[in-house]
Amino acid sequence: MDIVLDAAALEALMADVFPQVAEDFAVDALTGDGLRLRLKVAEKHLRPGGTVSGPSIFALADCAMYLAVLSRIGPVPLAVTTNCSIDFLRKPTAGRDLLCELRLLKLGRRLAVGDALIFSDGTAAPVARATATYSIPPDRPSPTC
Amino acid sequence: MDIVLDAAALEALMADVFPQVAEDFAVDALTGDGLRLRLKVAEKHLRPGGTVSGPSIFALADCAMYLAVLSRIGPVPLAVTTNCSIDFLRKPTAGRDLLCELRLLKLGRRLAVGDALIFSDGTAAPVARATATYSIPPDRPSPTC
Amino acid sequence: MDIVLDAAALEALMADVFPQVAEDFAVDALTGDGLRLRLKVAEKHLRPGGTVSGPSIFALADCAMYLAVLSRIGPVPLAVTTNCSIDFLRKPTAGRDLLCELRLLKLGRRLAVGDALIFSDGTAAPVARATATYSIPPDRPSPTC
Amino acid sequence: MDIVLDAAALEALMADVFPQVAEDFAVDALTGDGLRLRLKVAEKHLRPGGTVSGPSIFALADCAMYLAVLSRIGPVPLAVTTNCSIDFLRKPTAGRDLLCELRLLKLGRRLAVGDALIFSDGTAAPVARATATYSIPPDRPSPTC
Repeated sequence: MDIVLDAAALEALMADVFPQVAEDFAVDALTGDGLRLRLKVAEKHLRPGGTVSGPSIFALADCAMYLAVLSRIGPVPLAVTTNCSIDFLRKPTAGRDLLCELRLLKLGRRLAVGDALIFSDGTAAPVARATATYSIPPDRPSPTC
Repeated sequence: MDIVLDAAALEALMADVFPQVAEDFAVDALTGDGLRLRLKVAEKHLRPGGTVSGPSIFALADCAMYLAVLSRIGPVPLAVTTNCSIDFLRKPTAGRDLLCELRLLKLGRRLAVGDALIFSDGTAAPVARATATYSIPPDRPSPTC
Repeated sequence: MDIVLDAAALEALMADVFPQVAEDFAVDALTGDGLRLRLKVAEKHLRPGGTVSGPSIFALADCAMYLAVLSRIGPVPLAVTTNCSIDFLRKPTAGRDLLCELRLLKLGRRLAVGDALIFSDGTAAPVARATATYSIPPDRPSPTC
Repeated sequence: MDIVLDAAALEALMADVFPQVAEDFAVDALTGDGLRLRLKVAEKHLRPGGTVSGPSIFALADCAMYLAVLSRIGPVPLAVTTNCSIDFLRKPTAGRDLLCELRLLKLGRRLAVGDALIFSDGTAAPVARATATYSIPPDRPSPTC
């Protein structure tokens, strides 16, 4: 799974495609089989008590999957999530960013599948895990994985 | 599954607990086994091309599940989503609200499970379906279902 | 979603493709948006206490999805499940068959999605619900739904 | 997560509780956060073409989750699966056993969550991944994790 878009290119793409939310995220690193995406937690992501909302955690996993796929196949704007399953495991630590470690388990011609563990920055036990499936449009060059 | 909080009470509760997002939603109706929740689609929910974002659809399903559970067990603030699985089926119709038809399949002492179909207002084919599981805190009166 | 294979044709196909398990299932009815499949519960499906095993319930949902797709697109042997999510809600009634009510939510050219409620025969509360996604091979005539 | 039942104890428990299927499985190893379970693939697990059936892969993941939970909390017979989500990624290699690497992500007083990667023995790319949630009966000593 060769990398065809690096972290800076992914952030530029995000700013172009998702202008409303791009500033919420940062690509911390591309990894051997995926990437690590940061949610810069702000007031708008919180629920009373200081916990990060479920939809914000979902958005982090969904965005990480999208960027991980594009990092390997290039800017294919019509790729869409077809399924996402998320388990909420623990309350996030107040006042901390969230980190999403996304690994691609399959990158086929038509479907990509990845799973993710999500952590409060600095904490070892995951706050959530998620799996996402992406459908990739047919009219593009085939990846080799 | 008797109703213990009506639509107005649920909207008041939402305004109290989720002040950042309560104005996005309206309880259209309580139904025999759940409720119908409306997402008042606005600019902030959109992606380029006019489609509603995945996280916005997730938020609608998650909120519908939360309100459906509370409509039957009363205001138990510590109930939390433990799992949500969502399938995106079709692109939403541009310029239309989304409606979530949530039915409770189980309302036990410890766990509640519901599923949802999500439609663009005025369209028969669903844009998404979702299932959510809620964990209910132990120290409360037992429902009878 | 026109029906192109009826109940008898589906049972014959099942006997051909899944000879080890075809005798466990019966197509009770084709419905407007799917079908109803029966698991003829036998000793091999049980766990101690008389409950039907989780894998047997999974097999029922998976088989119902497979047959529902083929009932509409004809005998496409390479269609494969890509995801199945199942929630176990209640203990099945001892000594009863299980019925799976499967409805197709989407039947596209590349992906089909269906969900299912599973009941003990004669009981109104579901014992499980499931969602399955099927990947359909590209080289076939397009359905119109 | 201290180990309270070792591989031999788990296999003895399985033979007692699931006599119909216990011979299909072997506990290859207990790991730091879970275990590795082997499905001894036989004729009954196969579909035409030599691939392992979906229900057999589901059974492997479900059994691995059950045994992983009991390896840490002891023989609690009433623990039940409440949800299992499985993604089928690649066709298994013909003539090979399947190995399930199960890691517990959460082991609470009421709920346990684990995820699994499933491989054909000797092959690096996973054939499936799964997540399972277990509900644990309330009347037992609390684990410390």
